[in-house]
Amino acid sequence: MTGPATHREFFAVRTVGEVLEGFRPGRRTPVEAVTLADARGRVPAEPVRAPHDLPGFARSTVDGYAVRAADTYGASEGLPSPLDVTGAVAMGRAPDVAVAAGTAVVMPTGGVIPDGADAVVMVEHTQEAMPGTIEVMRPVAPGEGLVRADEDARAGGELLPAGRPLRAQDLGLLAAAGATEVRVHARPRVAIVSTGDEVVPPATQELAVGQVRDASALALAALVRDAGGEPDPRGIVPDDHDALAAALRDAVASCDVVVVSAGSSVGARDVTADVVAGLGQPGIWAHGIAIRPGKPTLLADCGGVPVIGLPGNPRSALVVFRLVGMPVVRLVGGMTQPPPAPSVRACLERDVPSAAGRLDVVQVAVCDGVASPLFGASALLSVLTAADGYVVVPDDATGLPGGSEVDVTLYA
Amino acid sequence: MTGPATHREFFAVRTVGEVLEGFRPGRRTPVEAVTLADARGRVPAEPVRAPHDLPGFARSTVDGYAVRAADTYGASEGLPSPLDVTGAVAMGRAPDVAVAAGTAVVMPTGGVIPDGADAVVMVEHTQEAMPGTIEVMRPVAPGEGLVRADEDARAGGELLPAGRPLRAQDLGLLAAAGATEVRVHARPRVAIVSTGDEVVPPATQELAVGQVRDASALALAALVRDAGGEPDPRGIVPDDHDALAAALRDAVASCDVVVVSAGSSVGARDVTADVVAGLGQPGIWAHGIAIRPGKPTLLADCGGVPVIGLPGNPRSALVVFRLVGMPVVRLVGGMTQPPPAPSVRACLERDVPSAAGRLDVVQVAVCDGVASPLFGASALLSVLTAADGYVVVPDDATGLPGGSEVDVTLYA
Repeated sequence: MTGPATHREFFAVRTVGEVLEGFRPGRRTPVEAVTLADARGRVPAEPVRAPHDLPGFARSTVDGYAVRAADTYGASEGLPSPLDVTGAVAMGRAPDVAVAAGTAVVMPTGGVIPDGADAVVMVEHTQEAMPGTIEVMRPVAPGEGLVRADEDARAGGELLPAGRPLRAQDLGLLAAAGATEVRVHARPRVAIVSTGDEVVPPATQELAVGQVRDASALALAALVRDAGGEPDPRGIVPDDHDALAAALRDAVASCDVVVVSAGSSVGARDVTADVVAGLGQPGIWAHGIAIRPGKPTLLADCGGVPVIGLPGNPRSALVVFRLVGMPVVRLVGGMTQPPPAPSVRACLERDVPSAAGRLDVVQVAVCDGVASPLFGASALLSVLTAADGYVVVPDDATGLPGGSEVDVTLYA
Repeated sequence: MTGPATHREFFAVRTVGEVLEGFRPGRRTPVEAVTLADARGRVPAEPVRAPHDLPGFARSTVDGYAVRAADTYGASEGLPSPLDVTGAVAMGRAPDVAVAAGTAVVMPTGGVIPDGADAVVMVEHTQEAMPGTIEVMRPVAPGEGLVRADEDARAGGELLPAGRPLRAQDLGLLAAAGATEVRVHARPRVAIVSTGDEVVPPATQELAVGQVRDASALALAALVRDAGGEPDPRGIVPDDHDALAAALRDAVASCDVVVVSAGSSVGARDVTADVVAGLGQPGIWAHGIAIRPGKPTLLADCGGVPVIGLPGNPRSALVVFRLVGMPVVRLVGGMTQPPPAPSVRACLERDVPSAAGRLDVVQVAVCDGVASPLFGASALLSVLTAADGYVVVPDDATGLPGGSEVDVTLYA
């Protein structure tokens, strides 16, 4: 009877900070064009420039009258400036009238400023003296009540930066500029390989004793999408060197990132490490991360393709993938300005112990400004589903005192 | 020559608070089943319950030895407790050996706890005395090193609440429980109608003077998706009563929410209000909101279907739709626990004036903890694309002083 396999894994334990700063596989996805309707969250591969001035013509920002500002100087309620109304601008049309000294033209919001005018008086600051004449009761300065032809963007100017995922308003500006497509990084294709002799597909209705359904693959697929990637689920591979080697070689050859949720036992993890070590150069970069939960994590650069070996239990796998895997997916997808994560300041309900030199991820429920740590074995997925977010105890801290104010990263 | 139309619109101006609390159209989307792979962000229509205990068997959480805890009491490095190793548990299989007094069984992490054992000793706390025998150097308590058969979930217990969008870990727990589908609210179908005689489709390459491309529709579609809805873009309708009435009647009949970005001039807004007033009971609920930008907003309940008339300029439309429209889409989609929004505390760079009785939305750039207000006419979309987020000046404030700490809602 032999005992459990000995621990061979912690030969290159890294801190989370070292991982986030130092792990830089070379792979970047190629550039493709997508239509604006499909571009939310996509990452421009180069700065987007304005093809022409925007809005392209001087435009009224109020309902009122286009005037020469000088004609209104000194105007007041007691001594209004009278102006002859010589025409009206129709929406979407070039004006058929110019503004001369002593005259005004009716302006709808958004209309084209006629020649000769340099300001628009709001209708509220005028009164109709007699048909065809208005009195202006407040002076306007040149440029008031309008936007210049190039005020939203100048021809050739940068509309949007590369590397920042496109937000709703970014799509609006692209549409205003007449862009029908935008050149973005392709979504990183992320292979998700599950291993473990005890793991069976989620659709398995009757479990034999000792079997568990694959909870990680579907959850990881959702996080891959959240990071801008395209999950490529590869199913469950037995805890067997040759089977795993074949599956991972194939994944590295056809995907941009490879994620393998290793078996949960030391023996299964050793198999994973042996296989990953043979996948390509420079190879294994971290074997173990100073994080709890999630210590038995493996990171490798296999010919530029990042390979991430996650802990076997789903909860640890999700914690590590959020902190370490999602940044890698974003990196490969060209995202240099990742979107902000929801967070909230809260008062920690009780002491949270930790060991120095290790980053602890503590799941919490948040209610009325109080963050309550949720305890329970790291094998329990229900702790994650009960959590509203998590608190990070940094490497250099030996814990966080109850009553202190903490930043909670919230799950969205 | 007639002047601009008179202001008829502000007959039921509401505060943003009144809108968010009081506007409660009855429409809810029906329930449908989706596969787990498509369920990220979807909203369970009813609580999801566990079909059986999870994990379903007592499971080791460490690599080590299953034991009777009582056999380890008093054990220490100086006086270890010797135990006979009588077998090993294989991953994914029922044990073929039980633990009797004075014996231990080799356990992989995740393996089934054999009959007779009530704890697992970590391998690090044992040493092999001679082949077939170990010495335990630390006592374990009953329940240590394992999770109970129902510790993740009890049969029939609530796994996930209704009304909270499904997160990655929620999908993991559903997969662990063997759910292949989940019953969720259908995505609200949101009609997006653009109006304005000056507005032309985004793909228009050459603009005539006075024309602008439709920037709102694409940006609103992205926000609709962000709120869990399915955008149904209806194109551009002329500023004409009959054309708009036909378009909106059709939209109300076939969609769950109707959004119309009204023309930007008062005349065009009046047409929109007249048309919406005839769409169904109880009809217009707010005509004008005490918000800047975005005052000329219309809210109506047309036979249970919310109709939202947005300001004509894209920037105001997007501000209002974020604050008021997205909550309505979420409501109709059964989302009672909306996801948290990203935010950050920052120091306001300068004074921001405001008028009491009105909520001001101030776009800001955030850098090194300082929030710098971005000024510019509300017609400028580039202010929104330059912004990292926004600060809200509440109704009851007359501004925010420079140097004060503010909450910035960040764009993601």
